[in-house]
Amino acid sequence: MRKTIGIIGAGVVGTAVGVVLSEKGYEVTGVYDIKPEATWQLAERTGCITLTSPEEVSRLSDVLFITTSDSAIKGVVDRLADSRAFYEEQIVLHMSGAQSSEILDRAKVFGSRVLSVHPIQSFASPDRAIEILPGSVFSIEGDKDAYDVAVDIVEAMHGEYFFISREAKPLYHAGACVVSNYLVTLVDFGVKLLETTGIPKNMAVKALMPLINGTVNNIEKIGIPKALTGPIARGDVSTVLRHLSCMEEALPSELMKLYSLLGMFTAHIALEKGSIDEEILEEFRHLFKKELMRAVSTS
Amino acid sequence: MRKTIGIIGAGVVGTAVGVVLSEKGYEVTGVYDIKPEATWQLAERTGCITLTSPEEVSRLSDVLFITTSDSAIKGVVDRLADSRAFYEEQIVLHMSGAQSSEILDRAKVFGSRVLSVHPIQSFASPDRAIEILPGSVFSIEGDKDAYDVAVDIVEAMHGEYFFISREAKPLYHAGACVVSNYLVTLVDFGVKLLETTGIPKNMAVKALMPLINGTVNNIEKIGIPKALTGPIARGDVSTVLRHLSCMEEALPSELMKLYSLLGMFTAHIALEKGSIDEEILEEFRHLFKKELMRAVSTS
Repeated sequence: MRKTIGIIGAGVVGTAVGVVLSEKGYEVTGVYDIKPEATWQLAERTGCITLTSPEEVSRLSDVLFITTSDSAIKGVVDRLADSRAFYEEQIVLHMSGAQSSEILDRAKVFGSRVLSVHPIQSFASPDRAIEILPGSVFSIEGDKDAYDVAVDIVEAMHGEYFFISREAKPLYHAGACVVSNYLVTLVDFGVKLLETTGIPKNMAVKALMPLINGTVNNIEKIGIPKALTGPIARGDVSTVLRHLSCMEEALPSELMKLYSLLGMFTAHIALEKGSIDEEILEEFRHLFKKELMRAVSTS
Repeated sequence: MRKTIGIIGAGVVGTAVGVVLSEKGYEVTGVYDIKPEATWQLAERTGCITLTSPEEVSRLSDVLFITTSDSAIKGVVDRLADSRAFYEEQIVLHMSGAQSSEILDRAKVFGSRVLSVHPIQSFASPDRAIEILPGSVFSIEGDKDAYDVAVDIVEAMHGEYFFISREAKPLYHAGACVVSNYLVTLVDFGVKLLETTGIPKNMAVKALMPLINGTVNNIEKIGIPKALTGPIARGDVSTVLRHLSCMEEALPSELMKLYSLLGMFTAHIALEKGSIDEEILEEFRHLFKKELMRAVSTS
């Protein structure tokens, strides 16, 4: 028999998971959000009764989803523990990438088992989340004897999964932040370079998008290091030198430092690709190191 | 009347441009590639006669496309100049991003006008290029009195365009390299972080792709700084601290330096977004600067 589900926190993720799991035959026995409208909406979409407190939601569910904002999880756990609303054999989980299941440990005092189950995704809205949860990859972390329940839930959402340890969660989250948050920073850097040449920001973003999408497709299809192209990949030291000498006049030294540091790692990927040899790698290293030292001394 | 086209260099770009322009009613009067098979193939696809030398291709065309690899352009120009194969009123252009039209200047001695017309795209194959040239954005650089010809060509390919100066070409090209080549480097960094936690490389790439695609979509739809999410955007200093302290044990100092430098710029984007204030910015700056100084002293 499928386990009953309770949801505290009816934001984007809570709503999406509630809707998808109730469609897949899970019974949502309780929903709570500090905003009453959010509670009513999710209750309506999952066909469950609305409840007046987090405690009631917890007591009625085999699996309790705490899908509040990251910063509110601890407060919910403390409140439920203080009012003894956890119980033996219950499974308590959150879906945060930044937090491990450690934040739920107070529930273990009552015999509950704890999990963090994190979809590696960025959800713009509940409806978009419902659309893209299937096909997402989830990390599962927490009590091993609750792994089977986590797997059932992920498989009901047609997701894939892997397990990671509690200690590994911050590095894993850092990796996700690098490819999503820092991607915005990287594109901003490229846009700034185009803007220095007089191209308006909107046009710069528009012009670069096909290149960005093309690169993402290449990474997906042929992987790293093969997807690397451009002057560093083909050992074209003179083009990189020309970039640097033009940047020197137009850009703050911090941005040249970023260009050089990324260039250093890129040259190593080119070596791994086999499109440059150790000698060219050394030339790039020398060039970028010189810029990095200069940037440090002037910053 | 549409101008006649000659193409020297029947690789991916030369082939795609030849096919698209001949479909749009341009007459391709000559094609040449150092590989005879490439010459024959493009001649067949554009319905033009094959020619036995670059000189013949140049002499028969109103607009000469030199679409060889970047490093071969100079040699072609020298050969054509040495054999006086350029002529008055001819337009000579290349489609390289890294080079400006300066590399074509020897043609001007004969009264030709020179251009660089660069599609900001990454083309995996000629057929894929034919598919995506429409909708691409082109930069146009070179002799102003040849701009109208460049615009006609770009519009025939259903592209958009902007003009840039000769001096600006390297900065523009650096911008394109940052968002494409360094994007591979950034994803590699994220994958490495996941790998440190024991996730196999293939699974790591697969797991991160939806997040990357989601971020690219967000940049396209809502722009920068709005597309920035994550711990820095929400001023969550403790999560970033946790990333750094875990990385310290698991990663080479150079990667922590990269994490911190990108973090510094990201914090400024968060300020621009208005999701953090000057005080939180200062906290992040202090944190990242400390890491950068330490990374420098140990590297």
